[in-house]
Amino acid sequence: MANFGLQRLAVVSPWEPHWREARSAVGAPDLLKNAKGTESLAEAVADCTLVVGTGTLTYRKPEQEVVLLPALGPRVAQELAVGGRIGLVFGPEKHGLTREDLSYCHVLVEIPTDPRQPSMNLGQAVAVCLYELAARDLAPEADAPQPETSPAAPTPAAASGNLDLLAEVVDEAMTAAGYSPRGMQAANRHDLRLMLRRMALTERDVRRILGLFRRILWRLRPAPPSEQGRD
Amino acid sequence: MANFGLQRLAVVSPWEPHWREARSAVGAPDLLKNAKGTESLAEAVADCTLVVGTGTLTYRKPEQEVVLLPALGPRVAQELAVGGRIGLVFGPEKHGLTREDLSYCHVLVEIPTDPRQPSMNLGQAVAVCLYELAARDLAPEADAPQPETSPAAPTPAAASGNLDLLAEVVDEAMTAAGYSPRGMQAANRHDLRLMLRRMALTERDVRRILGLFRRILWRLRPAPPSEQGRD
Repeated sequence: MANFGLQRLAVVSPWEPHWREARSAVGAPDLLKNAKGTESLAEAVADCTLVVGTGTLTYRKPEQEVVLLPALGPRVAQELAVGGRIGLVFGPEKHGLTREDLSYCHVLVEIPTDPRQPSMNLGQAVAVCLYELAARDLAPEADAPQPETSPAAPTPAAASGNLDLLAEVVDEAMTAAGYSPRGMQAANRHDLRLMLRRMALTERDVRRILGLFRRILWRLRPAPPSEQGRD
Repeated sequence: MANFGLQRLAVVSPWEPHWREARSAVGAPDLLKNAKGTESLAEAVADCTLVVGTGTLTYRKPEQEVVLLPALGPRVAQELAVGGRIGLVFGPEKHGLTREDLSYCHVLVEIPTDPRQPSMNLGQAVAVCLYELAARDLAPEADAPQPETSPAAPTPAAASGNLDLLAEVVDEAMTAAGYSPRGMQAANRHDLRLMLRRMALTERDVRRILGLFRRILWRLRPAPPSEQGRD
């Protein structure tokens, strides 16, 4: 990360003794000292507007759009140009990201590798991804590739944490409406997260939909004590 | 290397016990089993027509052309298209390639990094270089960048080993001609290696120049016993 000028590291659910030791060590780099430990992936990517998942797709069927790493640069540049924040998510060395983890990702990135040896070392996968995304900026002589996607929307995408908030409210509304039987809720939440990310909502979209669903919720169920008297 | 479909590894002056153990281990990958141990870098790159050196240039003044990694792909593709062989040379983790090592390189490649942290981990530097050079071939959907250099010469460049042979004969000729005082020979050999690589000689060029210098040598010094009677 330091090689490619990146600063913000979040570690999800770090093992506390190692985490404390690594960050407080004499000579620990600023990157590590300023790193954030979070309890969940949702928390780690809460302020990101484009969350990109990584990992081998050989053994799983992706549930969202897959972008080859050489094509990710323009996509990221476009998001940054409208004030968005990118989160790049790597799983643990042994088993990578879970299906649950991946449901927080808008897109998955695939590093093109030899089909006979698709599984990369974690540190090397990180280096290759950051090189692709950052090196061209560090080398102004090298021409950046032209964006292959459509022109950027004028507003940034919604932050991941706001999508989670929306998902929660929608989920509550579904339950309140009796749409989602309790036994199916975990699966529904998963699909809902994926769907909200596929939709590429802006903050304004999220505010509007949230407003709508809060309204629906308020109508569907008895008001909690704190909201009494509002109607 | 296996991730990016590369097969030919040579290790210069490996530490024998580790080397034997690593290659004969049960489950050692074919890449390692087929790896070549050589005594010198010259031997390792002897059949290469384009030798590319790597490492941080922050602390040294390069003596040959420097190419940024994002621009190396077209150069390599051009060399491969005319039947050339590429050698990518990495130094040991601690101190990288020596000035002597770099004199065997036609060009140096620079990975664009943050100036505050230019020094990369060896395994990550290898991954990033091989990704840049090989990943586009593994991902046919991603358009290869257009070559930025002039059209390729119709014949491949001379192999590094033949350039060494030529340098040796030229060096002998210089000594025989009294051109190179003995005390300056090491420095002269170094500059000669660099110069021959800058010249981008073809095999045919090398054969011609060799022929010329052998002729000069034969004229300059008394023929050794085996060559007596040839004139």
